[in-house]
Amino acid sequence: MCQPSDESGAVATQSQEKQNQQSSGNPPEEMHVKLNEDGNFLSFAPRPSLFSSEHPSNSYRGFVNVLIILLLMSNLRIVIQNLYKYGLLINPWHITHLGKSDNVCLAFSLWFYVFVAYGIEKLHGYVYSPIIKALHWTNAIASFVVPWYAIWYFRTDPSGGIIVLVFATTAFMKIVSFFLVCDRLRAEAKSKDKKFKPKLRQLLYFIAAPTLVFSPRYPRTAKIRWGWVLRRIWEFIGIWAGIYVVARQYVMPGLMNTLVPLENGSFFLIVEGLLKIAVPNFLIWILGFYSIFHLYLNILAELTRFGDRQFYKDWWNSTTLGYFWRTWNLPVHSWMVEHVYMPLTTRGWRKSPASIFIFIISAIFHELIVSIPFWNFKLLAFGGMMLQVPLIELTKCLKGSQTGNVIFWLSIMLGQPLIVLLYARDYAQGLYGPWTDADTKTVRLLHCFLPALSSYRRGQSFVEVLNGCVETGW
Amino acid sequence: MCQPSDESGAVATQSQEKQNQQSSGNPPEEMHVKLNEDGNFLSFAPRPSLFSSEHPSNSYRGFVNVLIILLLMSNLRIVIQNLYKYGLLINPWHITHLGKSDNVCLAFSLWFYVFVAYGIEKLHGYVYSPIIKALHWTNAIASFVVPWYAIWYFRTDPSGGIIVLVFATTAFMKIVSFFLVCDRLRAEAKSKDKKFKPKLRQLLYFIAAPTLVFSPRYPRTAKIRWGWVLRRIWEFIGIWAGIYVVARQYVMPGLMNTLVPLENGSFFLIVEGLLKIAVPNFLIWILGFYSIFHLYLNILAELTRFGDRQFYKDWWNSTTLGYFWRTWNLPVHSWMVEHVYMPLTTRGWRKSPASIFIFIISAIFHELIVSIPFWNFKLLAFGGMMLQVPLIELTKCLKGSQTGNVIFWLSIMLGQPLIVLLYARDYAQGLYGPWTDADTKTVRLLHCFLPALSSYRRGQSFVEVLNGCVETGW
Repeated sequence: MCQPSDESGAVATQSQEKQNQQSSGNPPEEMHVKLNEDGNFLSFAPRPSLFSSEHPSNSYRGFVNVLIILLLMSNLRIVIQNLYKYGLLINPWHITHLGKSDNVCLAFSLWFYVFVAYGIEKLHGYVYSPIIKALHWTNAIASFVVPWYAIWYFRTDPSGGIIVLVFATTAFMKIVSFFLVCDRLRAEAKSKDKKFKPKLRQLLYFIAAPTLVFSPRYPRTAKIRWGWVLRRIWEFIGIWAGIYVVARQYVMPGLMNTLVPLENGSFFLIVEGLLKIAVPNFLIWILGFYSIFHLYLNILAELTRFGDRQFYKDWWNSTTLGYFWRTWNLPVHSWMVEHVYMPLTTRGWRKSPASIFIFIISAIFHELIVSIPFWNFKLLAFGGMMLQVPLIELTKCLKGSQTGNVIFWLSIMLGQPLIVLLYARDYAQGLYGPWTDADTKTVRLLHCFLPALSSYRRGQSFVEVLNGCVETGW
Repeated sequence: MCQPSDESGAVATQSQEKQNQQSSGNPPEEMHVKLNEDGNFLSFAPRPSLFSSEHPSNSYRGFVNVLIILLLMSNLRIVIQNLYKYGLLINPWHITHLGKSDNVCLAFSLWFYVFVAYGIEKLHGYVYSPIIKALHWTNAIASFVVPWYAIWYFRTDPSGGIIVLVFATTAFMKIVSFFLVCDRLRAEAKSKDKKFKPKLRQLLYFIAAPTLVFSPRYPRTAKIRWGWVLRRIWEFIGIWAGIYVVARQYVMPGLMNTLVPLENGSFFLIVEGLLKIAVPNFLIWILGFYSIFHLYLNILAELTRFGDRQFYKDWWNSTTLGYFWRTWNLPVHSWMVEHVYMPLTTRGWRKSPASIFIFIISAIFHELIVSIPFWNFKLLAFGGMMLQVPLIELTKCLKGSQTGNVIFWLSIMLGQPLIVLLYARDYAQGLYGPWTDADTKTVRLLHCFLPALSSYRRGQSFVEVLNGCVETGW
């Protein structure tokens, strides 16, 4: 309770400094202090407590550190238990999965569609315009569908396959943007009696640049900061090593352990398993976001001297799901606004059908990409995306509130592992299609759970219900 | 990724508003938007990424919510496991332990010393002054030692006993402050040829008021806000119910489980057990702090219309241990400054011996209070307090840094459960005194652990060491 001194040891904050001025608890440096008229060294003054709402300003910065420490402590235990139970599951050679020749060939094959698009564009003036349009769309759709079908048909390595598919989606969107913007610029040039011809240089720069919307010019930076690029590359490699460790050591055993209660329907064990997967799953998601949307796109931008680096906004402060979907992925969002939403609304569509149309396109791509690692169309990724439409409406009333932010996080944190769990279950059992025997079983189990809940209401204690559930195989 | 709209859904922050003004991603309300000269609806602009250090201002408020959610999620699993394993251990009737008649009588007996102190004070003018001083000190020391010895001798209920002892410490400090300040005021009055006599009303108000330093007058508030008092009382009751649940359901089983590895020396299980206790132990500590230093003292202050409510400063932002000890408990700190530190330094003591002297007094009281629930003097509470002196010196260089704040939290979070664990071990085995057979055993185990660590350095993998430890009973 002791050691008085003038020097403040706290992180200096405005509140802190203010308080130190008021403070009479710290005796001044001079040694011969006079007693005040009440016979005390210290003086009393009317002051509110710091936690009180009457206190003018306050800094709780230290409590953020405490949250981080508590989180690490809680999970350090899980790390120790995990090492005891499973030993080390990681194996650096797994990285070779990403370099399988079939996937690498498919990734390189994407350049083909880019050059074809440029070739088709060159036909303008020689070929009837609607035919060119049809050729462009065929080429663009092929740039996604051909790699997708090849991965599905040859069952190439799924981890590499999913990367190829993300690149294929990017190629599709870039090619579409390229010919749509070229059309507009050609029409505009024509109205001024000029001619517009895109240069191959412009197309290739657009393919390399971290944007999905074509433009003949972009804001550029003066030079490439190579030291900065190298540091970002190291961070990128380190983060993906971390993601691999978390996925291999925590998510995969967690998934496998939860398949058993999912099979015999132990409701509380399912919830426990879901919570056990949710934390590492979220860690992967947030690290993946940072490494792709901050590091990877910034590395690309630096290498191409691309100036506009707003790849995401502050979606972590979202209080509505709508704000999250508009801000977490600005390259795709901008593409959707540029080539779907704005053309539709300028043609007289109302806002909400245009938004729903955008969600349908997103949902289809999500389902097609997720289908690869699990070799299954469960339509859960599609359904999860489409569920966002009513959820966005429901959360609109929470705009600006902390509750809205918490609900947003919970929907992200619990929705994702649930979907992953259900895909993993059907994958492990070799079940295919949007509705399987396992789904019927799960619904029947939930059907059993409702009577258990109602017996709880009839005055049984919680522990009795819990024991009852355990005894009856719940 | 979609649903564009003008309305921002994020918690409004300065950064956010600024960004919305810059933002060209949200299309304006008007339906017929013109294309820009690059043929796009959207415009590109040179902008840094939000996570980049180049970005002017940033709000990470949403990530604080995510930390809280992750923490609750990680611990919800533990709640489920705990209910499965132990069922409900809590029992509302345990509260009757606090009301045992022997402890209640001891608590009321403290008033005796207060009135005796007033009586001794009245002797001034009739009895030789040093005799009065001796009587005062005897009375003050008796106010702590007599209840302490009674609790020890009769082995009254420990949970009630510790509350009585805290009140007894308070009584001791208040009585000492009363006669020391009266002496000063009497000397001052004498120098002005006046007389000073404390009134019983003043003493009784001082006993009720939330301060340990006597003064004939204090800043007062205008009136008692009864609604406010009732809300604070409800909070106080709710928090202590929570503390009881956490202690009974999590800390006690955790302690008991860790006694076995502590006995047979499974090092990693000891660490795991310590981490398992650390989180609920910290929760109890932080809730206890809030309920006593914010709620209880504010309730007292409101009821006595006491104006000076600075009972703690922002110790949670501490970056040095010194700042923490000077700020977490201002009533005791002020008493120490007023009646120990300032008198010593004005008599020519240097700062640091005076500080160490204060720590010795604190350490003695801590040891005496902790001795009651565990019926043992292990001198760990004393040692833990005295260890603060070198730690304060060591952490001085970290002043103002986040590292300092993290080290401060870790020393609080890990030091406390370690001490509780060691007291609990000897209590469970019926061992007494500052050094027991169990201590010898623990030191021998640590002795064994060092070769294991050095073999780790000689190139064994971590898992081999872990397995080796498990096999050899570690």
